[in-house]
Amino acid sequence: MAGRALVQWEENRRNAPEALTVDVYAGGPAPDGLDGVGFYQVPYAPSTQGVDERLDIIGRMPRLEVLQLTSAGYEHVLDLVPDHVTLCNGRGLHDASTAEHALALILAAQRDLPRWAVDQRDHRWGSAPLRSLADQRVLIVGYGSIGQAVERRLLPFEAEVVRVASRARPEEDVHGVDELPGLLPHADIVVLVTPLTERTRGLFGPAEFALLRDDALVVNVGRGPVLDTGALLAQNGRVRAALDVTDPEPLPADHPLWDAPGVFVTPHVAGGSAAFYPRARAFMDAQLARWAAGEPLENVVRPGRR
Amino acid sequence: MAGRALVQWEENRRNAPEALTVDVYAGGPAPDGLDGVGFYQVPYAPSTQGVDERLDIIGRMPRLEVLQLTSAGYEHVLDLVPDHVTLCNGRGLHDASTAEHALALILAAQRDLPRWAVDQRDHRWGSAPLRSLADQRVLIVGYGSIGQAVERRLLPFEAEVVRVASRARPEEDVHGVDELPGLLPHADIVVLVTPLTERTRGLFGPAEFALLRDDALVVNVGRGPVLDTGALLAQNGRVRAALDVTDPEPLPADHPLWDAPGVFVTPHVAGGSAAFYPRARAFMDAQLARWAAGEPLENVVRPGRR
Ligand SMILES: NC(=O)c1ccc[n+]([C@@H]2O[C@H](COP(=O)([O-])OP(=O)(O)OC[C@H]3O[C@@H](n4cnc5c(N)ncnc54)[C@H](OP(=O)(O)O)[C@@H]3O)[C@@H](O)[C@H]2O)c1
Ligand SMILES: NC(=O)c1ccc[n+]([C@@H]2O[C@H](COP(=O)([O-])OP(=O)(O)OC[C@H]3O[C@@H](n4cnc5c(N)ncnc54)[C@H](OP(=O)(O)O)[C@@H]3O)[C@@H](O)[C@H]2O)c1
Repeated sequence: MAGRALVQWEENRRNAPEALTVDVYAGGPAPDGLDGVGFYQVPYAPSTQGVDERLDIIGRMPRLEVLQLTSAGYEHVLDLVPDHVTLCNGRGLHDASTAEHALALILAAQRDLPRWAVDQRDHRWGSAPLRSLADQRVLIVGYGSIGQAVERRLLPFEAEVVRVASRARPEEDVHGVDELPGLLPHADIVVLVTPLTERTRGLFGPAEFALLRDDALVVNVGRGPVLDTGALLAQNGRVRAALDVTDPEPLPADHPLWDAPGVFVTPHVAGGSAAFYPRARAFMDAQLARWAAGEPLENVVRPGRR
Repeated sequence: MAGRALVQWEENRRNAPEALTVDVYAGGPAPDGLDGVGFYQVPYAPSTQGVDERLDIIGRMPRLEVLQLTSAGYEHVLDLVPDHVTLCNGRGLHDASTAEHALALILAAQRDLPRWAVDQRDHRWGSAPLRSLADQRVLIVGYGSIGQAVERRLLPFEAEVVRVASRARPEEDVHGVDELPGLLPHADIVVLVTPLTERTRGLFGPAEFALLRDDALVVNVGRGPVLDTGALLAQNGRVRAALDVTDPEPLPADHPLWDAPGVFVTPHVAGGSAAFYPRARAFMDAQLARWAAGEPLENVVRPGRR
């Protein structure tokens, strides 16, 4: 099992078990010796768009056993990873950062922060009765690692949480996504935080919007295409949205979403904040140690086939 | 004890004990029969600035026993309430709303939301490594009713809280305000949520700013004059601030605080959001019932002298 590993951070190289040869590769031109690499941590970049040399070089690693992402999303590499390679993701490493951003978006929307920011630029001391997060019913669609972190942060705000995942788990009070039509009319806020899959693409479309109350808020911190942009635009302010991910992404300067009433956009910055790095470094230390010792890896999303 | 009460909300009139004569006064021209009023709920207005007819009419209530505010702050009425009148405030009624806004301001600052709001207006998809709230040490200066509500909401974000009040209470891990000089150099975020008193006016001034780390964040949801505006301006972006209350208030259009680097302002909207009203109505029902029954009142900040 011992072999060569490529990791992103010097600290992980220093902490690595003696049995391993570890080099640092943080992106950019391909390093030497790719043909000996058994474990490759794809250098983290906050956005997973496009394919660049960090991913291109996978094809030049014939001995690769483990491809380690530190992003939670992995839809962008599924077609690039040979069948015999074990694919691991960054599940958990973004929970604190992404859940925090979800709360930031919810509070910004409830508290009209974008409006105050623009008022400040115009030197205007406005006033308005504000919404609250307290007493609101929040649907978390995607009650996974991040969704649960969102829930922990929501509850002390005196909000009510309704859990939704791909399938019902009644013993955990989790609803299946097929129950959405019955749940949406009673929701004040919907948080989307699912992976992008064939089943979640367009999950939130015209039918779902139509079931929402006036002034309801939809927050997307999962993946842009989970929410149907056209369906949101058609709401024309009837419901509100706060989006860290969009479809398309990045949003072109002439895209109508920028000026859509009641829509607040942040440029896919939820997961990659300061909280991510210490958690990712600690995880990489442990994962490398597991690999060196031949122990089962964590966060395997697709085991390599023999 | 039975007598005439003036309350703000029709619902409280309907729910009042039979023994009471209750009328609704929601502000505006003085109602008839002021000389019979024994219990007066000053109609709530989100900001407590200035003295208007809601307060002027206190002088025309010779039988007044109880002056009930629904704001937490009461510094603005101390000089208007005769010695024999019991003054009660709205402690607790703004906890959910104000604590929520404190978190909104903290997250907005850590997550650069004002910048994304302005970028959105300009159709710009920016990018930047963001700060987190996770792993930050947050000093709560004013560990009272709202301060404790702020703490409950902060902890699930994986932040560390340091409690500060007017005097140390070691058994509760509360520091005295005299310990601030030792605490400030180790703080990432400082939340000010004290009442405005002679001791808190200018509490956060040049000496306190000087002790803060570069890029620290000061949040004020208490009262504007607790923070020395000139001292903040002199920082010129070295530390950041997010202020729901300012000095002066409202900020005139030509005030330099509007454009101060790293400063985000909301126009004193923390306490008066949607969460306030159901809590205030429930409190008023209970307080009127206590008054009618001759039971001790809650939230007495200054008992009437016989
Ligand atoms: N904006 C950002 O910067 C950012 C940062 C990090 C992650 N993300 C995104 O967030 C996603 C979730 O991350 P995670 O770590 O929480 O993943 P996770 O732990 O795997 O949880 C995913 C959740 O989504 C649910 N789900 C899957 N398909 C669904 C469907 N068709 N309908 C409803 N729910 C469905 C899953 O249901 P089951 O419980 O039934 O399996 C699970 O509860 C990532 O895949 C990534 O795309 C975005
Ligand atoms: N922005 C808004 O919209 C808004 C809304 C509501 C309230 N407020 C403001 O928030 C204030 C606090 O409300 P609250 O209900 O939490 O009051 P509270 O329960 O009376 O708590 C006040 C806290 O401040 C502390 N304190 C008093 N003097 C201090 C000093 N010199 N140094 C350090 N700490 C000091 C007190 O210390 P001890 O524990 O030692 O007594 C107590 O912990 C109100 O007075 C009001 O001005 C603002």
